[in-house]
Amino acid sequence: MNATAAKLLVAAGDLMIERNSTEISLSEIAQKSGVNAALVKYHFGNKDGLLLALLARDAQAEMATLAFVLDQPISPTDKMRRHIAGIVNAYFRVPYLNRLIHLLLHQGSEATAKEVHRFFVAPLFGFVKRLLEDGIATGEFRKVDPALFYISLNGACDHLFYGRQMNTHLIGSGGVTDAVRRQYIDHMTKLILGGLLTDKQAD
Amino acid sequence: MNATAAKLLVAAGDLMIERNSTEISLSEIAQKSGVNAALVKYHFGNKDGLLLALLARDAQAEMATLAFVLDQPISPTDKMRRHIAGIVNAYFRVPYLNRLIHLLLHQGSEATAKEVHRFFVAPLFGFVKRLLEDGIATGEFRKVDPALFYISLNGACDHLFYGRQMNTHLIGSGGVTDAVRRQYIDHMTKLILGGLLTDKQAD
Repeated sequence: MNATAAKLLVAAGDLMIERNSTEISLSEIAQKSGVNAALVKYHFGNKDGLLLALLARDAQAEMATLAFVLDQPISPTDKMRRHIAGIVNAYFRVPYLNRLIHLLLHQGSEATAKEVHRFFVAPLFGFVKRLLEDGIATGEFRKVDPALFYISLNGACDHLFYGRQMNTHLIGSGGVTDAVRRQYIDHMTKLILGGLLTDKQAD
Repeated sequence: MNATAAKLLVAAGDLMIERNSTEISLSEIAQKSGVNAALVKYHFGNKDGLLLALLARDAQAEMATLAFVLDQPISPTDKMRRHIAGIVNAYFRVPYLNRLIHLLLHQGSEATAKEVHRFFVAPLFGFVKRLLEDGIATGEFRKVDPALFYISLNGACDHLFYGRQMNTHLIGSGGVTDAVRRQYIDHMTKLILGGLLTDKQAD
């Protein structure tokens, strides 16, 4: 990618992290990157184009990780462990990732929303659906609705990174440190795989 | 509450639902309600004041339900079942609730953030913490970190209502109907209480 275009993406991502929000303007991005606002249009066409490129840059690693995990010669249970850790790590690295997807789906043009589904949501959901099917087939997993599972798992993992303010009160003023990240992976893994009850009475 | 003030809150809430966003302006609220923008200041002081009043109006029922559930002479497991259903129902009724809390914590003044913690987050978290302690004491629940549990449970329940667009692709064009709501309660209850595995190997 062109150096100027890359600079713009760096500025956009940094702004989203600083503001803890996806609501940033093209002029703010231009100002932060030191790049002339007119070059945004030149490189990306419009804001949707820039945000899509940002998503592509940031989701790349997560999707590659997911595909890699699924290809390993290990049990579905172990793949799910790695997948849960992978999601938490992806949101730790890119705290605005989930919200950026929702922003583009909701506020972007119809063409943009279609691209987001085609290149990100559908493949990510497809991976999870396949993993669940594999685990159900081996008898390791209960039958769960893949869409509801995908929605609840991503919502739970993302929420730790949503609000620094809420976390400060609940977790402590250190915020989401690397130690908290590892605690959350451990928490989410045990909760999702084993649930809250000591005795399986849920059904 | 004064009828004009109530009208403003209705307009603000409706706008947030229509836009699927908490990013609404005072002039938009004034326009939608048919109330003169100057009366917003008269009734609420400023935007923070209006949004706090909206949160108070909308969170009231959820907090009362939670307190009621905790007082019942039933097991911690059954209380947790009802609590999970209560959260999903609260977000079904007020889909912007979680995001409004985060908005006020993050973009509101320090005084506003303090009020949100004092009147909403701290009591809600306090309830959940107490319920977890009760269940751990009876041996029904595993030891979990209350803050991480609170964050993951709310994140998972909220996510269904976050993005109509994503849901349309994953769930179907009917969106989050009453049937989907009930399915999600069932899904979340089984997942949180019993986990994904058919056999408790998570630890």
